[in-house]
Amino acid sequence: MGDDLFATADFCLIPMGVETSVGPYIAKCHQILEKSGLIFKMHAYGTNLEGPWSDVCKAIQDCHKAVHAQGAPRIATDIRIGTRVDRALTAGSANENKVAKVQEILKKWEEAPQQDSETPHT
Amino acid sequence: MGDDLFATADFCLIPMGVETSVGPYIAKCHQILEKSGLIFKMHAYGTNLEGPWSDVCKAIQDCHKAVHAQGAPRIATDIRIGTRVDRALTAGSANENKVAKVQEILKKWEEAPQQDSETPHT
Amino acid sequence: MGDDLFATADFCLIPMGVETSVGPYIAKCHQILEKSGLIFKMHAYGTNLEGPWSDVCKAIQDCHKAVHAQGAPRIATDIRIGTRVDRALTAGSANENKVAKVQEILKKWEEAPQQDSETPHT
Amino acid sequence: MGDDLFATADFCLIPMGVETSVGPYIAKCHQILEKSGLIFKMHAYGTNLEGPWSDVCKAIQDCHKAVHAQGAPRIATDIRIGTRVDRALTAGSANENKVAKVQEILKKWEEAPQQDSETPHT
Repeated sequence: MGDDLFATADFCLIPMGVETSVGPYIAKCHQILEKSGLIFKMHAYGTNLEGPWSDVCKAIQDCHKAVHAQGAPRIATDIRIGTRVDRALTAGSANENKVAKVQEILKKWEEAPQQDSETPHT
Repeated sequence: MGDDLFATADFCLIPMGVETSVGPYIAKCHQILEKSGLIFKMHAYGTNLEGPWSDVCKAIQDCHKAVHAQGAPRIATDIRIGTRVDRALTAGSANENKVAKVQEILKKWEEAPQQDSETPHT
Repeated sequence: MGDDLFATADFCLIPMGVETSVGPYIAKCHQILEKSGLIFKMHAYGTNLEGPWSDVCKAIQDCHKAVHAQGAPRIATDIRIGTRVDRALTAGSANENKVAKVQEILKKWEEAPQQDSETPHT
Repeated sequence: MGDDLFATADFCLIPMGVETSVGPYIAKCHQILEKSGLIFKMHAYGTNLEGPWSDVCKAIQDCHKAVHAQGAPRIATDIRIGTRVDRALTAGSANENKVAKVQEILKKWEEAPQQDSETPHT
């Protein structure tokens, strides 16, 4: 996978044909992702994940396999996945940095209120 | 909006036709969501949001309007939105509860290791 | 809704807690969308939809209500929704034009093979 | 890839940091997908795609690589991907069958109007 793009991703896995309490399926995915060695973080409507493109896709497929093994006959997943070549991304910090950047901008705006709030301040 | 379904949602807004540093656009969305009065929480690849369906959709449209006003000529957004009629959802806790539930299951599994790790333990 | 943005959208509705054959739920959505008066077109993994932002969102909520009434206790939907202010979009042709544009470009490339296939030819 | 799950998918690729006319980027993806040998079909807001999980993910990564090579510094893609173990899927017909099934149900409903239009007729 030497020529893989580095990917920041987020996925939301929906088990179908089972009860509506999906906690156990998502908990199982948590265990699978821990084994993957990739950086990940769950939130209320999905899981942030980052790493080489193929590793990210393999980890999500492993989640599907485990959730099928738990008894879900069908699964529908939504994946958001991004790549960029305009700057190097350090594994383990790509997603983290995005949140920090927004908070930093909001702090700057608070300290120096925008005269024209419609102008981006990059 | 008396007959609106209560929705838990997550959206990821992508400004197009502008620079690749989208922090200022996402920070602007943060301000718009604060004004909306809805419960929301940003993560690295989107924003959790919950409330009456129409309010959630209006808040996201307001983000589009504000980001267009910042100079983005085109915007593509991905929204995940869920509703359920099998249990009442308390505004402000629907998304929060989902994460807590998964953590609780993981904790239970750790304390009482699964003999058959493939079986859901609801 | 006079100040609504015109939206091109695509959504994929997943009924949860029911059997895995979701055809009847999707067929019901087809009927709901016909009543909405909006332009729509189903494909294998979702439905193209376009119109004023609020109308698009209302139509999808109406699908949720109808699918809950069919017996699905929980629904998870993925919506892609786009707006643009760099050109006027004619209702009924916005989505249609996007496909035609790509086919036109492919045809041009076939007739005049790209020397440098990596350069966009707009 | 002998143990890959068979996946039906749909993806929508958004080039960032470039002009808003994305036709040439999508046309390039069309060429990449043709080379992949996978079954695919473009629609107005994405592309249906099916095949072994890893092949589907590789084809989409190849699209990212090609679109970066065309000059897009950043790309955000939304992927819907589904797997099922309750029935065998024949490559080349999985997505096609889904549309046919819905049309068949709608036809049946027209011929024998539902007394209770809320009941699924599987």
